[in-house]
Amino acid sequence: MTFTGRELRTTLTEDGTLTLSLEDVTVPAPGPDEIVVRVEAAPINPSDLGLLLGPADMKTLESSGTEERPIATFRLPKAILGGLRPRIGQSLAVGNEGAGIVVAAGEKAKALEGRRVGMVGGAMFADYRVLKAREALPLPDGATSAEGAAMFVNPLTALGFVETMRMEGHTAIVHTAAASNLGQMLQKLCLADGIPLVNIVRSEEQADILRALGATHVLDSRAEDFRKRLTDAVAETGATLAFDAIGGGDLGSTVLQAMEQAASRNATEYSRYGSSVFKQLYVYGALDPSPSTLNRLAFGFTWSVSGWLLFNFLRRAGAEVNARMRQRVVDELTTTFASRYTATIGLAEALRPDVLKAYERKATGEKYLIDPTRG
Amino acid sequence: MTFTGRELRTTLTEDGTLTLSLEDVTVPAPGPDEIVVRVEAAPINPSDLGLLLGPADMKTLESSGTEERPIATFRLPKAILGGLRPRIGQSLAVGNEGAGIVVAAGEKAKALEGRRVGMVGGAMFADYRVLKAREALPLPDGATSAEGAAMFVNPLTALGFVETMRMEGHTAIVHTAAASNLGQMLQKLCLADGIPLVNIVRSEEQADILRALGATHVLDSRAEDFRKRLTDAVAETGATLAFDAIGGGDLGSTVLQAMEQAASRNATEYSRYGSSVFKQLYVYGALDPSPSTLNRLAFGFTWSVSGWLLFNFLRRAGAEVNARMRQRVVDELTTTFASRYTATIGLAEALRPDVLKAYERKATGEKYLIDPTRG
Repeated sequence: MTFTGRELRTTLTEDGTLTLSLEDVTVPAPGPDEIVVRVEAAPINPSDLGLLLGPADMKTLESSGTEERPIATFRLPKAILGGLRPRIGQSLAVGNEGAGIVVAAGEKAKALEGRRVGMVGGAMFADYRVLKAREALPLPDGATSAEGAAMFVNPLTALGFVETMRMEGHTAIVHTAAASNLGQMLQKLCLADGIPLVNIVRSEEQADILRALGATHVLDSRAEDFRKRLTDAVAETGATLAFDAIGGGDLGSTVLQAMEQAASRNATEYSRYGSSVFKQLYVYGALDPSPSTLNRLAFGFTWSVSGWLLFNFLRRAGAEVNARMRQRVVDELTTTFASRYTATIGLAEALRPDVLKAYERKATGEKYLIDPTRG
Repeated sequence: MTFTGRELRTTLTEDGTLTLSLEDVTVPAPGPDEIVVRVEAAPINPSDLGLLLGPADMKTLESSGTEERPIATFRLPKAILGGLRPRIGQSLAVGNEGAGIVVAAGEKAKALEGRRVGMVGGAMFADYRVLKAREALPLPDGATSAEGAAMFVNPLTALGFVETMRMEGHTAIVHTAAASNLGQMLQKLCLADGIPLVNIVRSEEQADILRALGATHVLDSRAEDFRKRLTDAVAETGATLAFDAIGGGDLGSTVLQAMEQAASRNATEYSRYGSSVFKQLYVYGALDPSPSTLNRLAFGFTWSVSGWLLFNFLRRAGAEVNARMRQRVVDELTTTFASRYTATIGLAEALRPDVLKAYERKATGEKYLIDPTRG
């Protein structure tokens, strides 16, 4: 028995045209340790957008095709094609994670047949997905695919932040764009584990979301006294570690500066090289793809700014930590790790102009869940 | 017996006035493990300038006082005093390192009496310096104070770069502002130890200095094909580690981008998160104090940009590595670790307007050696 279904594809051609479309694909029969899953839910995560849309400008969006087989096209300026060269001409499948029903299983994976599983590994914006059984995790009894669709990227990232903090000897965390689904999970985790967390948001509405969860430190970066309040919060919590989803601009630099000022409040003598307190900023997202600006002179020489990537972290953390984190996700799937969505849409609807354009305002927290069974 | 002499002091007052002057100081009698050194040579290192001049604008320089006791004054805008607050009102001594004759010694340090020593620890722009015997290193027989004046900061930094490379698993180095005294030492070390080094300079004159030492990879950042040649050199050497003396602007970012492009030349499939090759940029100087710009999208998520500070490194490296590095400096003092100076000047001359202004063009490599015995 084979399964044929639609797969969302993104293709960039030499002339700078980026095309999103649905292609028919027959998934191969599962190998002995593989399963075929009928996808019932897959979130459009910020981490999917780089592959899905690249640096596409929404102003160039043109829609064509039919309601069932829509096509979205963007024009990219040739000047920015350089860094994208490796993907030119390839029809790429999209979707980091999802959940669904196991409709076929190889001989070593029979136990999963008929089970609802969460899964990770790409190409989830599709009707069917074949994958290794170990890349899937059975959902707890009674959990829906919508509940299990986002059990990897955000939960493991939030847990990864906490593990990174412990591995590197920090005791508190600063988080930007903190009202995101991920940010809410992190706040819940930090409350449960007694870790001081300084949340940076950019509206009172976002602040309210976090306060409703019990957050103590919630700062609006647009407030006039933001820098002073940030330094106060960093001094109070002792945070020397920050995770930044934004990347562009100077917010990360401002966080390092606040850490430096908090450290030098207690300094007894002037050091021309800045404080000896090590300050670490991890950039894990690119909500603002523009360059990062580091005002180094404001925070001395004892600091590091690094990329943070879930896959790199999981490799570094090792099998034991990975297993412990996955178990916690399963145990707290519908509490700590619950996600909220703006709307649930079908696969064809994912190419609707208003849905695509919503991601231009991605920092606003609009987030869609794709359910291919809806059409 | 006590010694009285001049000490160069830098003082910032609440109103934004930065004053350089010579003050009379009587050094305390040496403790049992201390020595008094009559300073004969002390280099004005780039690393001294932050303390000496801070962010002073040379256009505001006013000279007063006498030829023997000159005074140099700068006006700093109040807006930038914030980060300098800890030093306001303090008369600070300057000069990271130097060399001279031991003119008095405590009972446990008698062996050093009459010896010529190199020393590190601040306040070297002075006629006399009292310090712990272990902060001084006897010069090899026949070595002059001029030869031993710079045996700590640059030699240990160059050796520290190589040790850092080994500790962190890299196999080649990229260096900016590479024609500096430090850069020349690094090139000599890398040749001796068989380490591929990519030198970035900004004139043909600087390139010639390095080529005369036997450098293979010397790139002029002002050349039109700089980026392409940098990527080629990084690909050829396999460099994934860079040390940047400049800090400001986007040169560091350009180096990371070259490393990323070199890594993806061999990539077989497109990764939206960039290559999995870890790229490390260390910023160890601030020849350009303006902000650093990181074009993150050009180099993915597997990277780190960090401050590199000699004192932090020495602490991290531990006693054994420290001892090994110091011994190598003594052994190769007049070869690998020889420094060149634009001129040797007296202590009073260090406050001459033309000398101070030379440091505005500090990236040009002008470098003075202070010999207080000259006046």
